[in-house]
Amino acid sequence: MKRLLIGIAGGTGSGKTTVANDLISKLPKGKSLLIKEDNYYKDQSDLPPAQREKTNYDHPLAFDHDLLVDHLRDLKAGQSIEVPLYDYTCHNRKKETLHVEPAEIIILEGILIFYDETLRDLLDLKIFVDTDSDVRILRRITRDMSERGRSLESIINQYLRTVRPSHLQFVEPSKRYAHIIIPEGGSNKVAIDLVLTKMKQTLASNQEDL
Amino acid sequence: MKRLLIGIAGGTGSGKTTVANDLISKLPKGKSLLIKEDNYYKDQSDLPPAQREKTNYDHPLAFDHDLLVDHLRDLKAGQSIEVPLYDYTCHNRKKETLHVEPAEIIILEGILIFYDETLRDLLDLKIFVDTDSDVRILRRITRDMSERGRSLESIINQYLRTVRPSHLQFVEPSKRYAHIIIPEGGSNKVAIDLVLTKMKQTLASNQEDL
Repeated sequence: MKRLLIGIAGGTGSGKTTVANDLISKLPKGKSLLIKEDNYYKDQSDLPPAQREKTNYDHPLAFDHDLLVDHLRDLKAGQSIEVPLYDYTCHNRKKETLHVEPAEIIILEGILIFYDETLRDLLDLKIFVDTDSDVRILRRITRDMSERGRSLESIINQYLRTVRPSHLQFVEPSKRYAHIIIPEGGSNKVAIDLVLTKMKQTLASNQEDL
Repeated sequence: MKRLLIGIAGGTGSGKTTVANDLISKLPKGKSLLIKEDNYYKDQSDLPPAQREKTNYDHPLAFDHDLLVDHLRDLKAGQSIEVPLYDYTCHNRKKETLHVEPAEIIILEGILIFYDETLRDLLDLKIFVDTDSDVRILRRITRDMSERGRSLESIINQYLRTVRPSHLQFVEPSKRYAHIIIPEGGSNKVAIDLVLTKMKQTLASNQEDL
């Protein structure tokens, strides 16, 4: 059985989550799963609380990419994994984990999944969702105000202090490693259909091999 | 029968022709055809020879996109076309034409095929092959010196005088209309496989409908 591992990267507000969810909603139940890079923020139990609060969540160093690589290898090998959960209120990993069974289509989504060479080399198809920065920040403002109850000022401050510099330094250059770049994300039905066709062909091919 | 019309755009030396030829070589014989925008330079019989020599072949106005649109509509409707041939020595269309029968997969390749709105709206899948400008000019130099026996100086002069300005003004902005952007062109096997999978699915679906 061939398991297809697809990475969907892109900046904040690019539409990568919309693309990932759209793809999964169009696949037969139980055939796909979504792994979010956000779940793999580093465990910070060894740091004092004051230092944990300074975590720059937009920097590659914030992620435990080694664990993510191990988990993706396990899933590719048909083994289940225990996905870590993160608690932003205390800036640390929770004790509980999320049990995830392997599937034929594995989608990994995150801003910095193409940054680490070992990680990106695991991906069978690397997709970068590319959306203009003005559209991306507008989406982020709308989302963070409505879903997370944050003030416009705090969103702008965080964006200019950490999100934007990290985007320019790490996310944007990682676009170079993409196999395909999808402009505009979720509204790009033709590109989504193209990826979906490949996914369905993999499922059909696995079915024939049975 | 569904006929899939795919446009492959990109700057000079981007690798768009390599991608187009690679796709066609991997499809069953007789199932696909390639139309080159280069064949649709305007007929200039009404211009005096001195003025014809000044043709800027990198400008949208040099192309007869109306005729190209008519021909693509004919092919989509299952009708054959007479593709014009161009004579660069006298800067004018030849009297002879090339008879082309329709096929299930139609690939259109050219630098400015996304420029004209009517033209790009005809395309079921718009691919932009994106390659860095330094790599593109090196490819163009190599090709024009070996295949066309041109001097380095004349290649550089033409590049700076017309090719580069037109690229920045017309080709690069048309990338925005692409459904997918393929970095690096011919060497991007994963992206080519993705497009090929869609093409083969269309052929298989047509077969089932018979």
